[in-house]
Amino acid sequence: MRVFWDPVQLSHTPRFFLVRGQLRPHLEVPARAEALLAACRELRMEIAAPSPADTDALLAVHTSDYLDFLRHAAAAWSALADAAEEALPNTHPVPEMLASGGRMPEGLPGRVGWYTTDLACPIGAGTWEAAEAAAACAIATADVAAGGGNAYALARPPGHHAYAARAGGHCYLNNAAMAAARLRAKGASRVAVLDIDSHHGNGTQGVFWRRADVLFVSVHGDPNRYYPWYTGHADERGAGAGEGFNMNLPLPFGTGDDGWLAAIRAGIKAIRQFGAEALVVSLGFDASRDEPLNALAVSAEGFARAGAEIGELRLPTAIIQEGGYNLAVIGSLLTRFMSSFCDTSTAAV
Amino acid sequence: MRVFWDPVQLSHTPRFFLVRGQLRPHLEVPARAEALLAACRELRMEIAAPSPADTDALLAVHTSDYLDFLRHAAAAWSALADAAEEALPNTHPVPEMLASGGRMPEGLPGRVGWYTTDLACPIGAGTWEAAEAAAACAIATADVAAGGGNAYALARPPGHHAYAARAGGHCYLNNAAMAAARLRAKGASRVAVLDIDSHHGNGTQGVFWRRADVLFVSVHGDPNRYYPWYTGHADERGAGAGEGFNMNLPLPFGTGDDGWLAAIRAGIKAIRQFGAEALVVSLGFDASRDEPLNALAVSAEGFARAGAEIGELRLPTAIIQEGGYNLAVIGSLLTRFMSSFCDTSTAAV
Repeated sequence: MRVFWDPVQLSHTPRFFLVRGQLRPHLEVPARAEALLAACRELRMEIAAPSPADTDALLAVHTSDYLDFLRHAAAAWSALADAAEEALPNTHPVPEMLASGGRMPEGLPGRVGWYTTDLACPIGAGTWEAAEAAAACAIATADVAAGGGNAYALARPPGHHAYAARAGGHCYLNNAAMAAARLRAKGASRVAVLDIDSHHGNGTQGVFWRRADVLFVSVHGDPNRYYPWYTGHADERGAGAGEGFNMNLPLPFGTGDDGWLAAIRAGIKAIRQFGAEALVVSLGFDASRDEPLNALAVSAEGFARAGAEIGELRLPTAIIQEGGYNLAVIGSLLTRFMSSFCDTSTAAV
Repeated sequence: MRVFWDPVQLSHTPRFFLVRGQLRPHLEVPARAEALLAACRELRMEIAAPSPADTDALLAVHTSDYLDFLRHAAAAWSALADAAEEALPNTHPVPEMLASGGRMPEGLPGRVGWYTTDLACPIGAGTWEAAEAAAACAIATADVAAGGGNAYALARPPGHHAYAARAGGHCYLNNAAMAAARLRAKGASRVAVLDIDSHHGNGTQGVFWRRADVLFVSVHGDPNRYYPWYTGHADERGAGAGEGFNMNLPLPFGTGDDGWLAAIRAGIKAIRQFGAEALVVSLGFDASRDEPLNALAVSAEGFARAGAEIGELRLPTAIIQEGGYNLAVIGSLLTRFMSSFCDTSTAAV
């Protein structure tokens, strides 16, 4: 299988994020990509550079004002007096503000809050370049799937917490959502997104909430105890035309292979019933029992079985890297997942 | 004039807030109250302890679930593993989440974000007790005004950035809004709130946005460059029944006495036209040219003139302390404001 990768993605080097009242070293570090890349080499995957990100593909999910903000934020921030090296929000436009006259301000600190959800997505030198390159990898992967094949986007920063005009949870551009939109644009009439990162894919849910042409399925740790906190419950099923096309499978903390794979199987069943013509997988490894976040307890064998069962869908598939932060295991988890996926998927190139 | 003060307010000792990506020492410190109290003593004001905060008066502005949260948050936070001493949010329920199934989570870190706007209002041991005592001072002050007199609430933490169910900008309970609601409950048919803190009183605006019985007037620094960033523009005039009963007078950075007093005069004119029967003043000193925040450039004489002109309204008045962070000047600014106010207000007790 082909993997799309651009070393520009290493230029995003977030330093800190706020956890329980303290600034701590960021987990979404360049070394993650290097560990995953080493696994791809071991698997003898074909490593390809993507074409530059297609503007229409970015705009299919994101707003042009948000893209402009992200492109220029780091340089503008570095010109602020008394500012840290990377932009972090310190206030957000809460619903009460928007219900009583609130609007986007001219000043950069206010704009950083306008375009972010939380304290986990600092914007520094290289953030835009890396996010754009990750998007390019995801779009290239979707183009392979649009041609009937499978491919993997070694995408970093990840994307599934990003909304149309908002970064959040280590994510800036929603790579999986752009891949799904690209598959639609290239002719697949029904596209499914299966998100097995341990965090709810709230951004992807938000992007497709009112759409019936993209089925979103997410398997994740209980949001009552875990980021993104406010979304990810089973009764969130979409709205309007999209009602019934959003499926959340939250799992209790500590869930191991059996519970996790049963949820993935339920998602796969829904994807079959939906009649998906193409699949996007948001592939995170943070459900591993070896993860520092420690919400779920999936083994390496569990990831191998997930790869096999998803492969058995035999759909053209764009696999998009999301989270996974234990540098000692994510490479071997990718190896296990990909080997099994390729073994069962007849669509494999 | 009587000043209401409860030393319990000193028990709120916030350590840090996030400014431009860095955790910095908090500005809203107990020593502020001590500096203002010394000025009250110098003015020979009668210092009185308030009655405990009336539950109905709290509930006239705030929701019971929010009050429960604030009351118990610090103790619950201290039981979290790996947490800082005081609760700070790291994510918020942004509009996209609420539009795609979002709800309040069970877990405390998510609840802290649910009930806050920003990183400027840490919740620690003593925060609830101090906020409740500040509210009691504001309510007691309103009760004096309801009897035709004037009084001053030495309220800390301040209140004007707090919404019905959300803390923000050093504020937890909206003291001025509770005072205005108390005046309404005690029979004043029309109440005006004049907010001369250098920051827009976004919480108070939000509380009364759809109400015609409370006129809100705020004179403040341009929100395009300044907290609360998203609100405070002149064209925010209220909605529904409240349309036309919200008046914002934003001023360019660097505005001095003339511009500031002209805006206050415009507000006073609107209060007269409204036919207010009682007045609440949100009194901040951060418009001072000596303030660390440095948005406006008002002199001590400017504050004296503001006191005189507001006193000339000759309305029963509840003066509620809001911001002001230069410990070297806030006491003398209070002295100048209060002396002039008392000289001109015939309603003075």
